[in-house]
Amino acid sequence: MANYHKPDEKTLQGLKDIANKLRIHSIRATCASNSGHPTSCCSAAEVMAVLFFRTMRYKASDPRNACNDRFVMSKGHAAPVLYAAWVEAGFVNEAEILNLRKIDSDLEGHPTPKLEFVDVATGSLGQGLGAACGMAYTGKYFDKASYRVYCMLGDGECSEGSVWEAMAFASYYNLDNLVAILDVNRLGQSEPAPLGHDVDTFRRRCEAFGWNTYVVDGHDVEELCKALWQAKQMKRKPTAIVAKTFKGKGLRGIEDEENWHGKPIPSDRVEALLADIRGQIQTNKPLYPDQPEEDVPDVDLSYIRLPSPPAYKIGDKIATRRAYGVALARLGQNSSRVIALDADTKNSTFSETFKKAHPDRYIECFIAEQNMVSVAIGCATRDRTVPFANTFAAFLSRTYDHVRMAAISQSNINLVGSHCGVSIGEDGPSQMALEDLAMFRAIPTATIFYPSDGVSTERAVELAANTKL
Amino acid sequence: MANYHKPDEKTLQGLKDIANKLRIHSIRATCASNSGHPTSCCSAAEVMAVLFFRTMRYKASDPRNACNDRFVMSKGHAAPVLYAAWVEAGFVNEAEILNLRKIDSDLEGHPTPKLEFVDVATGSLGQGLGAACGMAYTGKYFDKASYRVYCMLGDGECSEGSVWEAMAFASYYNLDNLVAILDVNRLGQSEPAPLGHDVDTFRRRCEAFGWNTYVVDGHDVEELCKALWQAKQMKRKPTAIVAKTFKGKGLRGIEDEENWHGKPIPSDRVEALLADIRGQIQTNKPLYPDQPEEDVPDVDLSYIRLPSPPAYKIGDKIATRRAYGVALARLGQNSSRVIALDADTKNSTFSETFKKAHPDRYIECFIAEQNMVSVAIGCATRDRTVPFANTFAAFLSRTYDHVRMAAISQSNINLVGSHCGVSIGEDGPSQMALEDLAMFRAIPTATIFYPSDGVSTERAVELAANTKL
Repeated sequence: MANYHKPDEKTLQGLKDIANKLRIHSIRATCASNSGHPTSCCSAAEVMAVLFFRTMRYKASDPRNACNDRFVMSKGHAAPVLYAAWVEAGFVNEAEILNLRKIDSDLEGHPTPKLEFVDVATGSLGQGLGAACGMAYTGKYFDKASYRVYCMLGDGECSEGSVWEAMAFASYYNLDNLVAILDVNRLGQSEPAPLGHDVDTFRRRCEAFGWNTYVVDGHDVEELCKALWQAKQMKRKPTAIVAKTFKGKGLRGIEDEENWHGKPIPSDRVEALLADIRGQIQTNKPLYPDQPEEDVPDVDLSYIRLPSPPAYKIGDKIATRRAYGVALARLGQNSSRVIALDADTKNSTFSETFKKAHPDRYIECFIAEQNMVSVAIGCATRDRTVPFANTFAAFLSRTYDHVRMAAISQSNINLVGSHCGVSIGEDGPSQMALEDLAMFRAIPTATIFYPSDGVSTERAVELAANTKL
Repeated sequence: MANYHKPDEKTLQGLKDIANKLRIHSIRATCASNSGHPTSCCSAAEVMAVLFFRTMRYKASDPRNACNDRFVMSKGHAAPVLYAAWVEAGFVNEAEILNLRKIDSDLEGHPTPKLEFVDVATGSLGQGLGAACGMAYTGKYFDKASYRVYCMLGDGECSEGSVWEAMAFASYYNLDNLVAILDVNRLGQSEPAPLGHDVDTFRRRCEAFGWNTYVVDGHDVEELCKALWQAKQMKRKPTAIVAKTFKGKGLRGIEDEENWHGKPIPSDRVEALLADIRGQIQTNKPLYPDQPEEDVPDVDLSYIRLPSPPAYKIGDKIATRRAYGVALARLGQNSSRVIALDADTKNSTFSETFKKAHPDRYIECFIAEQNMVSVAIGCATRDRTVPFANTFAAFLSRTYDHVRMAAISQSNINLVGSHCGVSIGEDGPSQMALEDLAMFRAIPTATIFYPSDGVSTERAVELAANTKL
């Protein structure tokens, strides 16, 4: 194991200074929009500074480069501190951040991929880590590249079960290129989060779910540098960094106080508070991120065709789910970007036909449909793959919020529900999709295919693979 | 602490015999229907025998009596072993179980409350424990009664995040009247479950989520008797019993083998296997459950009225969400059955107005919307309460599968989404409900109220409280 070298004092001071600059940008932006979540930004400032200016490797002028390390802001309401990091990295103009939340600015209240440096929309809590899992799985097993994936979560959103679906997935697949940072700032929207500052319980939960876990002072840049360095050395386990922080850190009279969620700093207090923060900045030495390794394979973005036309004959009868498995396996012959995911129903949805033909491109997601959809979204980012995620159509209802967010994420995932129609027979109503068409029809940008036989199934699969938003 | 007394040998043998009788009923029923999940029943046979004939206290002739202990079969596909337990308890006719899955029988493939002994429909996995939490919360804090709540889960469904939402909820609220039994039979539908027989990891996860946890041999009736007795002594913590079992236990050539999920025993093998099981039965001594304590308060089921008509005047302007909080608080004055739940948005949905007026009838569910809906469903069973569960309308999409199951559960819960309509403004699309009407409109039996002002809001709340399926 390599030895850790503590950053020199100048670098540490530079990181502290950047953290405070991120605070200033976040406060000014939310004051300009008179809405937003500055206190949620302030708790995350040191983590963001260390991630973006010490740990992560990326081309600051080309945020969507496939070689870059990925970052997912799962606590999407802290968008301003993300935008602020890209101001400091030089990609966003400092004046532009004052257009936060304006109707003609892409710097929305919650991040979306309209921005070059955002891969997945967040803002419905608990969904970022699943997408990060998809990115990390893709990096490790499909791209076999050295980029790493970082995901910041709030403590409040760790009440969402989807977070623990993702935790189980990441350790099951040994995603040692994935780091989750839990910003444990103690306070939720309407009251303290259930665990408060009990970082030890967070640690136990993360460890029980198979993660290499560090508890750190989330405002100590040196502790953060060290833990994030240790995470890079870890093999076969994802790393969780439980960062004890304070909501509104650095804001006198606001830090660690309740009733400040989602509230900009009052105009009569902001100048004094900004002066406090400015007073702590000691240097203007810029810091630059390390460059990524250029080891990501090119992908073929041309139209994905079936290797030959459907070969069914008039009068052939085949269940559409069985035809689907054949179609997907065939499509996979012509494009290595085609992958399949399933939630332990592959022998019912017939995604097992694809698995048999292309075992390296099948991801078993077990009985965790929400996470399956998030993983698919993550796999599809930066056009690395074309995912088909499968389960009973009834159980896609479990993922409706994730599907909704997939649309906002401009994701090209394909969701395939078997056992649809009017009746599933003896298994009863819990297994029967009656709501699926209404559900998908209400999603802006969703395209619905409803094949009726083998030929239309093959062509529907081919069309779906190529249908963009 | 009281001392544990091991059951006498006759009782232990009686329990073993009942377990084997449950196997026989389950196998015969699924053979008769030529579909269903006998192997999932066989792993659970000893747990069911001990629960129904040693641990639980209930009136076998009156399954829905409010004083009875509750049982939730979260792994709903094991329905036949539940029906079999009620055969042995004398409530279901032995011949009737052979009508399993027939179109004119209420013994459906997955349990629904059409049956007197089922409180909530299951069959979409991972939802039972949340409902059990609602029952246990109601028993402990509203009814203040001695009934206890037992929930059986499969290991496969523990991949669902909603299970861990419920785990966190139960320990946060010290639900020491709740017991979860994890039937760790190692095998999912299409392959082994992710943790296989790693019961120690299950134990660590349960403990990290705050549960008193025992690992037992799930086929050893004496170990089960002891662990379930210990659970009754535990104060302030829910108890998890991690039962190591074998899928298809007792079936030669099938036990612990893959590819037997959801498959009846082939007709050419069934008689020999049944003879094996019958050969182990040593006694026909019937066992009877203990009777429950009669300590549940009566509830008033009459129409719930506002204490006075809405007092808004022509021209008054009020946000419907603010009017909603006032309306619910007012309604709560006239019925102690009215309760409110929220997912850490109470200062946005204005359920906090209800909380201020009736703090003992408000349940903070934190950021876990799926579990909030399940808890509400559990609270509403046996007409104990009239729950109103609140969050942003957009985030009710997170609960769509739970809402779907609530309809199959014939539940009278009320779901209230704020921030609906065409635009939520600066917060952006992730916070905006565009899909909510389509989503609820597709649910059979759902009634949708869409008030436009203070008066219609008050009346909508009143109507909703009284609207039955």
